[in-house]
Amino acid sequence: MIRPIDATHDPNLRSWVESANQKDTDFPIQNLPLGVFRRRDSIDSSRIGVAIGDRILDLSLCVEAGLLEELPGKLQEACAATNLNPLMAMGSEASLALRRCLSALLRYDTQKSLPEREILVSMSDVELLLPAEIGDYTDFYASIFHATNVGKLFRPDNPLLPNYKYVPIAYHGRASSIVPSGTFINRPKGQRKRPDETAPSFGSSRLLDYEMEVGFFVGTGNKLGQPIPIDNAEEHIFGLCLVNDWSARDIQAWEYQPLGPFLAKNFATTISPWVVTLEALVPFRCSAFSRPQGDPPPLPYLFSRQDASLGGIDLTVEVWLLSAQMREAGMESFCLSRASFAQMYWTLAQMLAHHSSNGCNLRTGDLLASGTVSGAEEGSQGSLLELTQRGSQPIQLPTGEKRGFLSDGDEVILRGYCEKEGYARVGFGECRGTVLSVE
Amino acid sequence: MIRPIDATHDPNLRSWVESANQKDTDFPIQNLPLGVFRRRDSIDSSRIGVAIGDRILDLSLCVEAGLLEELPGKLQEACAATNLNPLMAMGSEASLALRRCLSALLRYDTQKSLPEREILVSMSDVELLLPAEIGDYTDFYASIFHATNVGKLFRPDNPLLPNYKYVPIAYHGRASSIVPSGTFINRPKGQRKRPDETAPSFGSSRLLDYEMEVGFFVGTGNKLGQPIPIDNAEEHIFGLCLVNDWSARDIQAWEYQPLGPFLAKNFATTISPWVVTLEALVPFRCSAFSRPQGDPPPLPYLFSRQDASLGGIDLTVEVWLLSAQMREAGMESFCLSRASFAQMYWTLAQMLAHHSSNGCNLRTGDLLASGTVSGAEEGSQGSLLELTQRGSQPIQLPTGEKRGFLSDGDEVILRGYCEKEGYARVGFGECRGTVLSVE
Repeated sequence: MIRPIDATHDPNLRSWVESANQKDTDFPIQNLPLGVFRRRDSIDSSRIGVAIGDRILDLSLCVEAGLLEELPGKLQEACAATNLNPLMAMGSEASLALRRCLSALLRYDTQKSLPEREILVSMSDVELLLPAEIGDYTDFYASIFHATNVGKLFRPDNPLLPNYKYVPIAYHGRASSIVPSGTFINRPKGQRKRPDETAPSFGSSRLLDYEMEVGFFVGTGNKLGQPIPIDNAEEHIFGLCLVNDWSARDIQAWEYQPLGPFLAKNFATTISPWVVTLEALVPFRCSAFSRPQGDPPPLPYLFSRQDASLGGIDLTVEVWLLSAQMREAGMESFCLSRASFAQMYWTLAQMLAHHSSNGCNLRTGDLLASGTVSGAEEGSQGSLLELTQRGSQPIQLPTGEKRGFLSDGDEVILRGYCEKEGYARVGFGECRGTVLSVE
Repeated sequence: MIRPIDATHDPNLRSWVESANQKDTDFPIQNLPLGVFRRRDSIDSSRIGVAIGDRILDLSLCVEAGLLEELPGKLQEACAATNLNPLMAMGSEASLALRRCLSALLRYDTQKSLPEREILVSMSDVELLLPAEIGDYTDFYASIFHATNVGKLFRPDNPLLPNYKYVPIAYHGRASSIVPSGTFINRPKGQRKRPDETAPSFGSSRLLDYEMEVGFFVGTGNKLGQPIPIDNAEEHIFGLCLVNDWSARDIQAWEYQPLGPFLAKNFATTISPWVVTLEALVPFRCSAFSRPQGDPPPLPYLFSRQDASLGGIDLTVEVWLLSAQMREAGMESFCLSRASFAQMYWTLAQMLAHHSSNGCNLRTGDLLASGTVSGAEEGSQGSLLELTQRGSQPIQLPTGEKRGFLSDGDEVILRGYCEKEGYARVGFGECRGTVLSVE
């Protein structure tokens, strides 16, 4: 069930937090994404916050101050937890109740009664942490453009495998190495073999890449053996974030047959700190991707009318790069690509229903990611592998530097936002990571 | 470092628990495997136990009774925990200290001072649970015979891929659906496509299989970005168990390209309840598998002298089947295969060193499994896929029933044991699961 638009989405709603009323902010009062932070100057444990403009509303302090008193006790307890898991476990009714309460608390006419200095903290004073304890991490392959682009490089005659249009292809990723935005990324070592070499050698990856993805967190889970029907799938989704699925292409090419990627990807996966709830995204829902004439319809367990008409999300995602040389020269980051998440072949609901269709149990806090978001157009490819044709057509940066793959010192910055006439912009913030080499 | 044999391995050592002195027991005083149990008649939380004959030593009660007082306080606390993670995290010195203490506590001449009825519980009075909280689960593919057998079925001309002899191939499995021995296994549904069909259909798997594997738990982990050198790898391994990596071959064949197995395996993985520590296995260490003439040597990061000479484990593994019809007729289970874990192409240390070689962090309690253990000989294949040549040469059971793949009501029983002249048998107990269909 996709919820109706309500008063919390009203574009005219303003907050007493002035920075939330700026036109270009990612975090207006209509967004209210949740994250976990720690104050830099404190030894307190981590706590839940809500991004509002350039500030964070500290939910633990709100609970202490009685500002969430209208919410059920258990929900208040979840707001005072050290990560989002208890809140995620309470389901979409609780998310909605919390959203309404937060919207009322932060709107322009509420300030007079609030102890502002106490419950707000500046973003610059905190460290943003992983929003949830992630039990399992699954990565899909839901962009047909990405699958085709990559397939063309490896199998020019047969880019798209016969199962693609039937199966939301996915593999299990590594949960332990998911890191929050800002964590430095060590260039991994591994076995690489150039086509002209007879044997592999072990050393630093020469073909390090990013993948621009959208992730979504499981709210309420399911029991082992009890699939989630597609009609109910969205009720099990808490919210979305940005994901950089760092990939060492040389390690990947050599190791991936026959069981899929392993060390090429499990050295690090970066996620953005703010979880944008499905409730915040209601105005930006759109129809699922229109399958080209001739494509098979989804099998019945992957089809619902509601999902076909509103299962998409009109979310723009971008990749930006800042090289060490650009940083030293004081330059701004450079946009490498821009794509629409509405162009994905499979919806969130289809991915989740497929994942549990064999009875596999999903747990609260599990992360599912979309796979690389690439579009049909030039400049919409979500990885360097695609953008540079496996490095053969390097990109030129404003400094004149060229990039086939990532160099040491490069910072990759993912951004995402929803914009629509008549609605406030809902942004995802940033997902950042800088590549380092350690000897 | 592989530890020397010490007094705890003395084959003449006897226990005051009489059933532990039977020649065929899996759990003599020389074994002392650890597990987690809950008394059926109690509402107590789960607790750690040690298998001894047909009894379990309750470590929480031992701590309460002051019987482990010679151990450091932190180690005693770990023994009184609700799962093995705290103990695993303490490393191999702690494991050894505990083993010595338990051996002394259970030896024949100690009984007079012990409150026997209080600290022992009968195996029949408990439910055995998962021994640890498993963060990530990784499954390898370390038997070259298995890889070749499977490869022949899918690629007759090219059974073994070029990377096999260089890369300990692995993929990430699903941690959430790892279940303890005895859990019923629902036959999964999924997309299947017969070669003569033009499109897949969704329904119950028709080609359900088991895979006989050996698992090992990470003790102390490593930090992200800090590989574990092969010389230290065994210090990070706590102990071993048996693993049944249930596999739906029809779902697998259709879904696995290009990212590897997913729904074909993540519906359930069964593990045996008792973790046999590396300390217990010392007498059964043997040289790593001898690579045939012409095979490349392991790359330097996968080689150590110690591992080459003692990295193997002379462990026999068996698969037994009990069909519903056999059960009704009061028959015993039937042995399908028997193989030696010493025949694996890659050692535990090689798997662990490879896994962390790119900086991937392993955490205490993580489970790594070997992949299917198959040998070179007839009757040593660890899956029905191999034993029956993809169902084309069905096995005949003592009832006259035939099996290409598993039928509903079939119970698969994995067993493992180490036997060597001059040493007490060290057994792994059983890993059981019965297939059910649910409509």
